[in-house]
Amino acid sequence: MQPDFPRIGKRLFCEHLVGGNFGNMSVKTDDGYFITKTGSYLDADPEQIVLMPLNGRVTPRASSEWRVHTAVYNASEHKAIVHAHPPYAVALSLLNDAEIETIDSEGHLLAPTIRVVDGPCGSQLLADVVAKSLASANIVIAKGHGTFAAGRDLDLAYLYTSLAEHCCKVLYLTKTYR
Amino acid sequence: MQPDFPRIGKRLFCEHLVGGNFGNMSVKTDDGYFITKTGSYLDADPEQIVLMPLNGRVTPRASSEWRVHTAVYNASEHKAIVHAHPPYAVALSLLNDAEIETIDSEGHLLAPTIRVVDGPCGSQLLADVVAKSLASANIVIAKGHGTFAAGRDLDLAYLYTSLAEHCCKVLYLTKTYR
Amino acid sequence: MQPDFPRIGKRLFCEHLVGGNFGNMSVKTDDGYFITKTGSYLDADPEQIVLMPLNGRVTPRASSEWRVHTAVYNASEHKAIVHAHPPYAVALSLLNDAEIETIDSEGHLLAPTIRVVDGPCGSQLLADVVAKSLASANIVIAKGHGTFAAGRDLDLAYLYTSLAEHCCKVLYLTKTYR
Amino acid sequence: MQPDFPRIGKRLFCEHLVGGNFGNMSVKTDDGYFITKTGSYLDADPEQIVLMPLNGRVTPRASSEWRVHTAVYNASEHKAIVHAHPPYAVALSLLNDAEIETIDSEGHLLAPTIRVVDGPCGSQLLADVVAKSLASANIVIAKGHGTFAAGRDLDLAYLYTSLAEHCCKVLYLTKTYR
Repeated sequence: MQPDFPRIGKRLFCEHLVGGNFGNMSVKTDDGYFITKTGSYLDADPEQIVLMPLNGRVTPRASSEWRVHTAVYNASEHKAIVHAHPPYAVALSLLNDAEIETIDSEGHLLAPTIRVVDGPCGSQLLADVVAKSLASANIVIAKGHGTFAAGRDLDLAYLYTSLAEHCCKVLYLTKTYR
Repeated sequence: MQPDFPRIGKRLFCEHLVGGNFGNMSVKTDDGYFITKTGSYLDADPEQIVLMPLNGRVTPRASSEWRVHTAVYNASEHKAIVHAHPPYAVALSLLNDAEIETIDSEGHLLAPTIRVVDGPCGSQLLADVVAKSLASANIVIAKGHGTFAAGRDLDLAYLYTSLAEHCCKVLYLTKTYR
Repeated sequence: MQPDFPRIGKRLFCEHLVGGNFGNMSVKTDDGYFITKTGSYLDADPEQIVLMPLNGRVTPRASSEWRVHTAVYNASEHKAIVHAHPPYAVALSLLNDAEIETIDSEGHLLAPTIRVVDGPCGSQLLADVVAKSLASANIVIAKGHGTFAAGRDLDLAYLYTSLAEHCCKVLYLTKTYR
Repeated sequence: MQPDFPRIGKRLFCEHLVGGNFGNMSVKTDDGYFITKTGSYLDADPEQIVLMPLNGRVTPRASSEWRVHTAVYNASEHKAIVHAHPPYAVALSLLNDAEIETIDSEGHLLAPTIRVVDGPCGSQLLADVVAKSLASANIVIAKGHGTFAAGRDLDLAYLYTSLAEHCCKVLYLTKTYR
C-alpha cells in the first residue's frame, strides 16, 4: 500500500493539483490510518508516512490536517483521502457559496454538484463539515483552501481531485470566453 | 505496437491533454483492435490493454467507450484512435454548436474546422456521430466531453489531439484578450 | 553537439513551448546545418537529425521548414535556430500587426520589442521576412504560426523562445486582469 | 547541501515557476554563500554553483543578481534564497503599487500581504529594497521581474515561491471570472 503514496503524489504534482509541500494523503488501516508527515512532499519516498490511530494520541509529525482525516474515516466507509490545492477549484470556491454545478460530461457523471464548505484550516469545525459532506460524496472543496477527495483507495481519491479541477477549469474557461 | 500505448500516453499526460485515469486509446488489428482497459492510466504499462473483436462479444474490462472505437473502425480506414479530455477543447465545444473554426496556421493546414458532435457518453448515438465525422476527418470533439482523434497510427491520433487543444487555446486567448 | 538536440527538445516540451511533433531545430556546421527530420519529436534521440547543405539539394526528410533555416544562416551570424509554437506568443501575434512591446524586466533587457512577421508556412516569403528580422534580433514571431529564435547555440535560441512566451503570457495576464 | 540545488531547481521548473536559464538560488555558509552561476540552469548538476564571499571580491561567474543575495544575508537571518519568474506573480506585480493581498487560506496563513518593490535589475537599489522587505518577510516580488523568497533552507524559499504564484493565480482567476 505504501508505494501508492509517492505514485499518486507524483501524479498530483504533474497535473499541478498541488505545489510545494502542500497537501496531504492518508490510507485507512484496521483501527487507524497511514498519513503523510507534516511538511513532507507528497511525491517523496514512503518513509514520509506515519501511522495515526483513530482514537488515541496524535502521532508526532502527522499532517496538521489529521482532524479532517479522522473525522472522515469515522463518518464514512472511505478507505483513502487526498487533500490538494488545485487553483481553479480554489478560485471557484471563493466565488460560490454552497456548491459548484459542473457542466462537462465527466462532472455530470461523477460529481454533478461539488459542495463548498467553510471553516478555519486545522479546526474541528472544518473537519466536521468536510466529513459530513464526504459521508455522501467523493469530493468537497474547502472554501479558499483546497479539495478533500475520498474513496476506496488513493487512486479514486486522486481521480476525484483531478476531476474537480478539470470541471472547474472548464467552467472558468466557458465563463470567461466571449 | 503495444509499447506505443504508454509512450503516447505519457505524452498525453505531459501536455495536460488528459488527467486521472480518463481517456482511452486503441490500435486496429486484423479483425479487431487493442484497446486500453477501463479505468487504466494511459501511461501505464502495456499489460493494461485488451484485444477487442470488431464483431462478437465485448471483451471483459475493455474501455467503456468501445462503441465509439468499433464504430470508427467500421466506418473508416483509420488504424488508431485517441480519446482525451483537453480542457480548452472541451470548454469551446460547450460554446459552439456545430464546429470550431481554427485561426492559427497549424489549424488552417490540418483542421480548418473541427466538428463538434453531441450524444450521451457510452451511447451508440455518440459512437455513430463520432464515426460519421471521423470518416472524413482526423479529429472531432464530443460536446462537453473530449476529443476523438484518429489516423494511421497512435502518433497521428495524438498529434491531432494536441493540435485541437493548441488551436482551441489560441482561440480562447485571442477572444479573451483586450 | 547532437546531444543538445534532445536536451533542448525536452526543455521545450516541459515548458509547453511546443507540442506533438511540431517545431524544429537546427545547428550550423561548416557549409550546412544539422536539422531535425520532418515529423520528428524534438525530444527524440539524436538519430532524428539530418545534415542539410546551405547550397545544393534538399536532404530527404529534412524539416519542411528548411527554407527559413537556410535563409537565416545566409543572412546572419547565428549558429542555431529553434522554431516552436508557444500558445501565448501565437495568440498575441494574431492581435498585433507589426510588433509586441514587452512589459516585464527580462523583456525590457533582452527583447523590448518582438517583431511579428507574416507569410505562408513553408514559403520563401516567410523565410525571407524571418531571416531579415533575425539579422538584427534573436526572436521573431510568425503570425499565427510560432516563434523563430536564433543565437550562438541551441541553448540561447531556446532561451529566447522561453522568454518570448513568458513576455507574452505576462502581457496577456495584465491585459485581461481587472 | 549542494544536492539541494538541482533538487529544488527541478521542482521550480516542474511547477513553471521559472523557465529557460532564468532565476538563481543561494545557500548561506559561514562567511559567504553558495550561488548558482550566471546563465546556469537551476536544475543542472551541483557543479553549476560557486562560492561567493559576503565581503570581498565578486566570484567570477556568480549570478549577476549577487547584490540582492549579499544584501539579504547582511540584513537578515535567512539561510537560503530563491529567485524565480512566476508569470502570475510577475503580472500582478505590474498592476499593484505596494503590495498584493492574498485571498486564499495558505496566503492568509503564511503571507497575508506580499510586498511589491521596484528597482533596476542588478542594481544596488533593488538589492536594498528586497533586503529591507525580506528582513521581516519570506517573500517579496520585484515589480515586473520576479519573486525573491528566503528562509532557513532552499525548501522553505521554494515553498514561498510556490505559495506566491498560487496566491496570485487564485487572485487572477477570481478577478477575471464572471
